Amino acid sequence: MGRTLRELWDGGEATIGGWCSIPSSFSAEMMGRCGFDWVCIDTQHGVIGYDEMMPMLQALSITRTPAFVRVPWNQPDHIMKALDAGAQGVIVPMVSTVEDAKAAVAAAKYPPMGMRSWGPIRAALDVPDYSPESANRRTIVAVMIETPGGVENLEEILQVPGVDAVYVGPSDLALGHGMTPTLKVENPEHEKLIDRIVDTCRRHGVVAGIHCDSVETVRRWHARGYGMFTVGSDAALMRSAATAVVAQAFEGGREIKVPATGQYA
Amino acid sequence: MGRTLRELWDGGEATIGGWCSIPSSFSAEMMGRCGFDWVCIDTQHGVIGYDEMMPMLQALSITRTPAFVRVPWNQPDHIMKALDAGAQGVIVPMVSTVEDAKAAVAAAKYPPMGMRSWGPIRAALDVPDYSPESANRRTIVAVMIETPGGVENLEEILQVPGVDAVYVGPSDLALGHGMTPTLKVENPEHEKLIDRIVDTCRRHGVVAGIHCDSVETVRRWHARGYGMFTVGSDAALMRSAATAVVAQAFEGGREIKVPATGQYA
Amino acid sequence: MGRTLRELWDGGEATIGGWCSIPSSFSAEMMGRCGFDWVCIDTQHGVIGYDEMMPMLQALSITRTPAFVRVPWNQPDHIMKALDAGAQGVIVPMVSTVEDAKAAVAAAKYPPMGMRSWGPIRAALDVPDYSPESANRRTIVAVMIETPGGVENLEEILQVPGVDAVYVGPSDLALGHGMTPTLKVENPEHEKLIDRIVDTCRRHGVVAGIHCDSVETVRRWHARGYGMFTVGSDAALMRSAATAVVAQAFEGGREIKVPATGQYA
Amino acid sequence: MGRTLRELWDGGEATIGGWCSIPSSFSAEMMGRCGFDWVCIDTQHGVIGYDEMMPMLQALSITRTPAFVRVPWNQPDHIMKALDAGAQGVIVPMVSTVEDAKAAVAAAKYPPMGMRSWGPIRAALDVPDYSPESANRRTIVAVMIETPGGVENLEEILQVPGVDAVYVGPSDLALGHGMTPTLKVENPEHEKLIDRIVDTCRRHGVVAGIHCDSVETVRRWHARGYGMFTVGSDAALMRSAATAVVAQAFEGGREIKVPATGQYA
Amino acid sequence: MGRTLRELWDGGEATIGGWCSIPSSFSAEMMGRCGFDWVCIDTQHGVIGYDEMMPMLQALSITRTPAFVRVPWNQPDHIMKALDAGAQGVIVPMVSTVEDAKAAVAAAKYPPMGMRSWGPIRAALDVPDYSPESANRRTIVAVMIETPGGVENLEEILQVPGVDAVYVGPSDLALGHGMTPTLKVENPEHEKLIDRIVDTCRRHGVVAGIHCDSVETVRRWHARGYGMFTVGSDAALMRSAATAVVAQAFEGGREIKVPATGQYA
Amino acid sequence: MGRTLRELWDGGEATIGGWCSIPSSFSAEMMGRCGFDWVCIDTQHGVIGYDEMMPMLQALSITRTPAFVRVPWNQPDHIMKALDAGAQGVIVPMVSTVEDAKAAVAAAKYPPMGMRSWGPIRAALDVPDYSPESANRRTIVAVMIETPGGVENLEEILQVPGVDAVYVGPSDLALGHGMTPTLKVENPEHEKLIDRIVDTCRRHGVVAGIHCDSVETVRRWHARGYGMFTVGSDAALMRSAATAVVAQAFEGGREIKVPATGQYA
Repeated sequence: MGRTLRELWDGGEATIGGWCSIPSSFSAEMMGRCGFDWVCIDTQHGVIGYDEMMPMLQALSITRTPAFVRVPWNQPDHIMKALDAGAQGVIVPMVSTVEDAKAAVAAAKYPPMGMRSWGPIRAALDVPDYSPESANRRTIVAVMIETPGGVENLEEILQVPGVDAVYVGPSDLALGHGMTPTLKVENPEHEKLIDRIVDTCRRHGVVAGIHCDSVETVRRWHARGYGMFTVGSDAALMRSAATAVVAQAFEGGREIKVPATGQYA
Repeated sequence: MGRTLRELWDGGEATIGGWCSIPSSFSAEMMGRCGFDWVCIDTQHGVIGYDEMMPMLQALSITRTPAFVRVPWNQPDHIMKALDAGAQGVIVPMVSTVEDAKAAVAAAKYPPMGMRSWGPIRAALDVPDYSPESANRRTIVAVMIETPGGVENLEEILQVPGVDAVYVGPSDLALGHGMTPTLKVENPEHEKLIDRIVDTCRRHGVVAGIHCDSVETVRRWHARGYGMFTVGSDAALMRSAATAVVAQAFEGGREIKVPATGQYA
Repeated sequence: MGRTLRELWDGGEATIGGWCSIPSSFSAEMMGRCGFDWVCIDTQHGVIGYDEMMPMLQALSITRTPAFVRVPWNQPDHIMKALDAGAQGVIVPMVSTVEDAKAAVAAAKYPPMGMRSWGPIRAALDVPDYSPESANRRTIVAVMIETPGGVENLEEILQVPGVDAVYVGPSDLALGHGMTPTLKVENPEHEKLIDRIVDTCRRHGVVAGIHCDSVETVRRWHARGYGMFTVGSDAALMRSAATAVVAQAFEGGREIKVPATGQYA
Repeated sequence: MGRTLRELWDGGEATIGGWCSIPSSFSAEMMGRCGFDWVCIDTQHGVIGYDEMMPMLQALSITRTPAFVRVPWNQPDHIMKALDAGAQGVIVPMVSTVEDAKAAVAAAKYPPMGMRSWGPIRAALDVPDYSPESANRRTIVAVMIETPGGVENLEEILQVPGVDAVYVGPSDLALGHGMTPTLKVENPEHEKLIDRIVDTCRRHGVVAGIHCDSVETVRRWHARGYGMFTVGSDAALMRSAATAVVAQAFEGGREIKVPATGQYA
Repeated sequence: MGRTLRELWDGGEATIGGWCSIPSSFSAEMMGRCGFDWVCIDTQHGVIGYDEMMPMLQALSITRTPAFVRVPWNQPDHIMKALDAGAQGVIVPMVSTVEDAKAAVAAAKYPPMGMRSWGPIRAALDVPDYSPESANRRTIVAVMIETPGGVENLEEILQVPGVDAVYVGPSDLALGHGMTPTLKVENPEHEKLIDRIVDTCRRHGVVAGIHCDSVETVRRWHARGYGMFTVGSDAALMRSAATAVVAQAFEGGREIKVPATGQYA
Repeated sequence: MGRTLRELWDGGEATIGGWCSIPSSFSAEMMGRCGFDWVCIDTQHGVIGYDEMMPMLQALSITRTPAFVRVPWNQPDHIMKALDAGAQGVIVPMVSTVEDAKAAVAAAKYPPMGMRSWGPIRAALDVPDYSPESANRRTIVAVMIETPGGVENLEEILQVPGVDAVYVGPSDLALGHGMTPTLKVENPEHEKLIDRIVDTCRRHGVVAGIHCDSVETVRRWHARGYGMFTVGSDAALMRSAATAVVAQAFEGGREIKVPATGQYA
């Protein structure tokens, strides 16, 4: 805790992040107190809009845990507002082309590197010598590679200046390639794609991250070269712990009839 | 109450929906308890953003009333976030071209039908066997035909796979064709457009819906072949009932000086 | 619209008020635009806490409709905070004794009349020459007479300086006297209590108000001497209008299976 | 899921509840989907006020999980507002005397049993034949026995009509008796108090509940006769799961420097 | 206070506006009570999303201060929702081309002038004879000229019908032209750009506005022909006043170690 | 910044605090970045309820500025919830008797000193070795002396163990003694009361604080022995800075017609 995203990136060690889907500054603060290297506020699939996201970024500031925001879509409004509000990085979904990647970077970086508008209302807080240059260096842009186009064009995407990381969404990756969406990668075709991405990233010296369902999966992909991980989400961790309590509370256990689909929360 | 939007659509009967403009989970729950076949949360002209919309979708879940969200604009961020949060369908404003219609469908459907990203955080709740295929079938896409382009291209728009319904905004329809915006259709040119739309829809077997100002108007359009209706909004119903109370409370009545423009709420 | 509560009180005419149960500044603004003489934000049985109430008071300020707040209980914190936030009067539930009435007045009035603390953060806005004296005169205190004790002690309660109005909750009144709680007063014992209250009030020159379920009921009690009325609530008006739409939308009608208990919203 | 609190109480089986400290309707819905017999929204030590609590009660309604609210203090405003908003029961802290218990019951029950004011705005929803009698039977009042006075007067408190359950807060119980506050009961004096409470309750046929830190503790107290349990809270479960992820993510583990005090969240 | 934006524009006098970055309807009301000709709610760099913006527009309605909204980006969703909610004008960032300007106008104006969708839920309130025509005349569109493209294409942008004002963001203007972003214009190149913009605007009879850091700067640019000004923001004004208090409170003063970057708030 | 309230108290130096009336976590963070020794969130006269207060306490945690909460009234629910949420101290209004003072202390301190219930959900965060003893020492209780009773009984009140400070509200003090409520103390009787309070406090070694309207007033009372100050509030500072901008923006100035009553915000 306490290092910036850039320092983590420059440090070169594998990092583990927390993932926030619950729209609450209190749960965000709690996630910031769990020892994660960084926490991502998911405004794409999490049930979080801007007005709930903002105090969550404040909450993470308490613990000096650097924050990513996953934006709902590759749009300048989402990217710029997240960064102004204090996110140190953005995770941009469904980047499929070089143009997509360039657009994401452009929105995240001040001129001359990009076209971010100046107004770092919370971004500049506690940052000595905040300037366009220091902010451009400081800000991490992670592009999600999870579509056929993204896989196809990865080589070129990685060469777009300002792309600091690739983040893999295994579910979309599977779905876009005709497979069942899942974080449990059992299909060899699915696995091959995941390997292919990290291999390409390593050749280009770009960190590859991936969304996981368990610590076992973290270790599996860590061994393959991935270096940035999350496990489930605040809600998923809470649910798995809570259902375990119910199941185990009484002698003989209790069968929990929770829809299997609960995994997506 | 209790049937999904898809079941209502497959049922073939005319449906009546409630319309939410008030940003409150409590008023949404009340609307869900009025017997409507479905309720639409209007994030276009209603004063509702994402962070207020989300608990409103929860509120409708209590009553098992299926929810539409009218998105502010035909953008993937709005469509995907509404569906992830639990809307069973989207109403997409100002669809004027085949490209518009295809974009709306693409954002609402998972591959291979579209490009919706996987993360059905509330969408999968209470849905047995939620999968990309079942979700694609389950999700209703209603395109608003309310611009000259939309009327012109309706034939082609209806042939875009995934367009389940057409929803007519009589005010915009009038305005775009040089007439006064109103739900009270008295201009024969206005009426002709409304007839033309439903006739085209019927030929293609697509449900046509329309925004109404009264039950009389519902019956009028029902007789013409429309099959999906709303009357005013939560706020408009409340206001008309409340002004009636004021007007009638005392012997002799009382003149209510409410601006005529109150009708838009 | 535009007169203060005090001006309405001094005017001596019967008044009709709106009743807000929905926690939303938008629905409050709409209620303020319906021609009511005043609007009451119900923080007792409405689902409204302080943080939702405050912007509702702002919303009513737009329309210059004076606001009552019904406080959750006869406590200084609730009364003082409502008045500071801009309510021109309070309706205090379940006043049963002279001590209750004195406590309500004390919390609502500055010294030497009471013990209200000075800090009229919104109360003083738009009030020329706001002072302890003008505020004490301006603020309306309505005590609810709805318990056996309240009925018993009414004579004395009315003589407590600062009690400007009595407001009758017919449901609690019935319930406390061993009858079924209802706004539809059919039980002669119930009716007798309601008559007794207004008779006592008139003898003391204090306005008597009463919660009604319909305009018919308003006229009934108006004829008996009551002079301050509400009909249902924002939510109830909305629901009755909405269920009427559903019932009447289609030829042949539709049976609405809404629990009868829906009346309490 | 689906049984009312009263049905659970009449059923006689031990129950396990979820505990909400996070102010979010989404996390509340998730807790309602974990298989708990009931969920308690903690507005005493949880960071939840009324305006956040209300949509949480709505969220629990989705899953038909009956809700308790732990009120901040033994006051009629808190108890009545929680019940009106849809809680099926209240947990009332620091009940030390017969008068405390009577006050709690009075606020929770309609006349003639108590003095609860009529206005069941959400309480009556989905309840066939809601009436003062049915509501009085339906509502569960749990008094917390956690002070020296409470232990001393337990015999008499249990004889107050309307006291349905005792709930033990082991931390306050220890602290009030001069011991360190903890859920891990190792001090024999502490244990003796816990045993004494359940024994007294059993003699009077009143369910005794207790706050636990783990399933082991649930089983320990279940064996002693306790019949109503919680384990930690939403936030605590989330944190323990999240810190486990961090600790185990990488080979060799990682030391988490989370303040020990984190246990109170 | 009390004139519409259009009346101010037609009046031809220089105007001074307030700038809201704090997401609160209370601070917005306070800003509306300071004598500003208009107030702008900044949803670009201010930490304000739609759900916080809406009650802020209500708050400004109390004081009859006309409201601008600065939208996060030149998108129809943002522009239309702001206007429907009651803004009388929009300030659109980073307009660089004629196409940008046309898009901004199109979103802000009803047909035939533009493509704004009809649904003036709050916009029509208190507006006698609200109609597409009157609304199109009433609505002010201010385009921000702050990029090299904007400066380059200004001549043509000013000829786009419906562009009522130019608003200069000196920081972005500097940054886009390779200078340090600042409101303190000391670089002659920076100053030259600012002069060039106002000169071009004056030739076309379009009001030029500019963001300032102090009243001195207002006077400086007023002398050059600018006619629309803001100074800092609600947060910045509050901070400068508060830090002055701290610095001067005690004899001898106190050095305030506030990061210089605090200026951006 | 960074010292606890207790450390400030033990340090013995005069302190200057910020005062929050605006319900916003963003304005609270800004106030926390102005160099104040502490910040008080005013939930008595500020328009702030619990659900807005909580994230404001989080916001102050970012800057390590210790927080007071002024509670709405001397009640255990308000005091305990504020402290659990992370306030390091409470300011309790209208303490008039020894019993009042004892009640305030009892609610703020754990047994055996008081009766505070254990559940320091945010209070224990970042506090090494949080325990009942350390918390009791850490928590500052400031009682407001502002009523005739308070002045009369001050000697005894100061001897109640756990009373750490006296805070004077000059407006209520004047009002309760028959004078005009004001922070500008010109009436010699008013001044005499203020002197009498600080003299009594100094004899008992208790810090006396006072609400001021300007730095001049701070210095005036500092010279008399007061040691804890605030100047206006966030809203008042913002308004005075904003009205100065409007007045001075243009040559010749502009008369601001802001009601004099604006001073109370």
